[in-house]
Amino acid sequence: MPSTDLTFASRDAHHAWLASQAALPAGFRIGTTRFEFIPFEVHKPAKMTVTLIALDKPTTAFAAMFTKNAFPGAPVIIGRKRLNEPTIGAVFVNNKISNVCAPGGVETSERLCAAVAKELGLTAEQVLPSSTGVIGWKLPVEQMLPAIPLAKAALQSTSILPGAEGIVTTDLYPKIRRASVGNGSIVGIAKGAGMIEPNLATMLVYLLTDLDVPRDALRAALAAAIPDSFNSMSIDSDTSTSDTVALLSSQRVPCPDLAAFQQALNQVCRDLAEDIARNGEGVHHVMRVQVSGAPSADFARGVGKSVVNSPLFQCAVCGNDPNVGRLVCAIGKHVGAIAPGTDLSRAKLTLGGQVIYQDGAFRLSPAVEEQLIAHLTGAELYASTPPPDGLTFAPPITYPPHERCVEIGIDLGLGSATATVIGTDRSHEYISENADYRS
Amino acid sequence: MPSTDLTFASRDAHHAWLASQAALPAGFRIGTTRFEFIPFEVHKPAKMTVTLIALDKPTTAFAAMFTKNAFPGAPVIIGRKRLNEPTIGAVFVNNKISNVCAPGGVETSERLCAAVAKELGLTAEQVLPSSTGVIGWKLPVEQMLPAIPLAKAALQSTSILPGAEGIVTTDLYPKIRRASVGNGSIVGIAKGAGMIEPNLATMLVYLLTDLDVPRDALRAALAAAIPDSFNSMSIDSDTSTSDTVALLSSQRVPCPDLAAFQQALNQVCRDLAEDIARNGEGVHHVMRVQVSGAPSADFARGVGKSVVNSPLFQCAVCGNDPNVGRLVCAIGKHVGAIAPGTDLSRAKLTLGGQVIYQDGAFRLSPAVEEQLIAHLTGAELYASTPPPDGLTFAPPITYPPHERCVEIGIDLGLGSATATVIGTDRSHEYISENADYRS
Repeated sequence: MPSTDLTFASRDAHHAWLASQAALPAGFRIGTTRFEFIPFEVHKPAKMTVTLIALDKPTTAFAAMFTKNAFPGAPVIIGRKRLNEPTIGAVFVNNKISNVCAPGGVETSERLCAAVAKELGLTAEQVLPSSTGVIGWKLPVEQMLPAIPLAKAALQSTSILPGAEGIVTTDLYPKIRRASVGNGSIVGIAKGAGMIEPNLATMLVYLLTDLDVPRDALRAALAAAIPDSFNSMSIDSDTSTSDTVALLSSQRVPCPDLAAFQQALNQVCRDLAEDIARNGEGVHHVMRVQVSGAPSADFARGVGKSVVNSPLFQCAVCGNDPNVGRLVCAIGKHVGAIAPGTDLSRAKLTLGGQVIYQDGAFRLSPAVEEQLIAHLTGAELYASTPPPDGLTFAPPITYPPHERCVEIGIDLGLGSATATVIGTDRSHEYISENADYRS
Repeated sequence: MPSTDLTFASRDAHHAWLASQAALPAGFRIGTTRFEFIPFEVHKPAKMTVTLIALDKPTTAFAAMFTKNAFPGAPVIIGRKRLNEPTIGAVFVNNKISNVCAPGGVETSERLCAAVAKELGLTAEQVLPSSTGVIGWKLPVEQMLPAIPLAKAALQSTSILPGAEGIVTTDLYPKIRRASVGNGSIVGIAKGAGMIEPNLATMLVYLLTDLDVPRDALRAALAAAIPDSFNSMSIDSDTSTSDTVALLSSQRVPCPDLAAFQQALNQVCRDLAEDIARNGEGVHHVMRVQVSGAPSADFARGVGKSVVNSPLFQCAVCGNDPNVGRLVCAIGKHVGAIAPGTDLSRAKLTLGGQVIYQDGAFRLSPAVEEQLIAHLTGAELYASTPPPDGLTFAPPITYPPHERCVEIGIDLGLGSATATVIGTDRSHEYISENADYRS
């Protein structure tokens, strides 16, 4: 990471770049529609977009991975079953309500799959459902059923951008990443770490490819791409009940090289993971923690996660404050918890390339502090501005101005394993997004 | 918990209550002094208070427990050694700088112990050191040495209040709790979850008793009191490098009943833990999560910790938003991670006594939402007010107006073990406290 080092001066410039990345692989069509409804649980109107991804013909080559949360959403419960089906012909996604622990949730989701299937000439078992948004609320199935033919009518085969826009909730902007292998491509979209006015972070990722990789190889490739991309990223440590990553092949283009496919898939997944972090709620800085010298990759990933999930370090980074004591605290907390008695005297820490800790002690001075502040300031996406009502902060941008990160190096001096973890800071904008009432 | 249900209308009223709790047990004296200095690492002046706790004669009966952080502070490294000494005669505490990973930190701390020992006619090994504050900075030893005779001159045997005030950093108010056993007492003070303009959360707790409990029994009692008090509490999940809980007996009063001593110690520790949470940085609500039906107490405590450490649920509680989907997410995240495949269909969840989830689905309606909002609002300590500069939030109170909690019940339906965990919400005041620059 990163595979790109893009900068954008405006939302229009970002949108133009997204459009340039959005060509659908052969064999896929995508369509969306949007409508207003009144949730059962509250009395205020809300809006929902449904997104339909259709294959020109059902495919045997599909893969999906789901949240490990012990309260999985109804679409996740159904999706796990769908992995045993011979073919998949469509994906049906809604935002606004995640259909988690709602009374009759699985039945509702299956009813929607059946309706989609009827429109497309499939069976319900050939439809993979996804829902993201408020947890606990019921899906407005009576309003969703008439939206299905409208989404079908909107199907087109040129651009994935409507899908990238359709699946978002509080995301500031859509996310698309692509890679080519031979004559084919992998194109992915992601819905990132967002809430609905506000609600639970629910990551959805759809990866579409025309490259013909058989089901088993496709699933192995997806499983191999996840640990270093989506499983090495955190915005707020809250594992969603609905996280889903699905990879579908239309089997149109011969795959020349499985290793090249894996590499391309890894890259698309890593780029989307970083996009999700950069577009995380209230994010001012993306952190990239490169851990080395660990006894195992899991150990390294755990240390990186502990750093990016430390509320105190997140706040310090937000304030461009090189409070590196909090970095040491976060490392020591995790290592002390999982491996008591570990000797960290050979650890070496860097921030923005500057050595800050070595040989058992900090290497700090007013001059070093100034360099660290400059690095943090240079990686800032935007600064907070006082809100009109004095309380409710909102990001002043709706596009990613650059792809720079706060670069943290942690050599534990314990072994040879490594991991790279992506995370974010913690800001007033995150609190405003998530402490305000839902509707 | 709780042992008390106090309310305070003003800082003066709270201070009067603290004073009523502050009588020192027989055999102890306490004194403090404060001075200004310039830290080596930055160029702005700072203030430090040193606190001296002296026993009238060295005691064999002392106990201490320390952070599990793998980067322990120099005083923690020394404190662990002191546990093997035959007697302890004094405790020497400074705030502002925590002496963690600072070059020559252990030598500096030992030099201060030797100076304290010389003033009091002890050996350095009879002095237990503690430091709290900025991590990484060096102690200003040349300015601290002349403060020692001043702290000695301030020693008095009537009130622990100067000590409770002397050890704080960004705490809004001092914390004192006491309990009586027979003719003796246990009095504890705590420095809570605070930063220094701002810095790392460093919990310090000193428990003084005149009850004569032998060393081994005293240490066993302290170890038994910790899991359900300080180890069942979290404000921001950042395990400090300097956490210390020390229990000293002056051995003046016969202990009539060890079980009664344990019970009193448990109560003082739990009350102080809840005080620390209530005075946590930017805290608007204290949460009390009562977990039952768990396979083990550790399992139950882990579920409770996952709930109080969920940034999304913390934000929802801050906004008086009964976003119970986030509660389910936090439980499911933890259970899914530590026990994949666990069936949570028999789980029952309550908020403010109201059943919100049972028999595998939520029990929500507009009427239930209103009840939940009323419970959250009733447990609020204060509401945010727009800050003068538009960005920097500060709590409008400097005392605890009440002791009400957001009451969360989680019956996992898996076993018979229980745990109660105390936590806090997450607010703009926390971000302001910790994202601003340190000096």
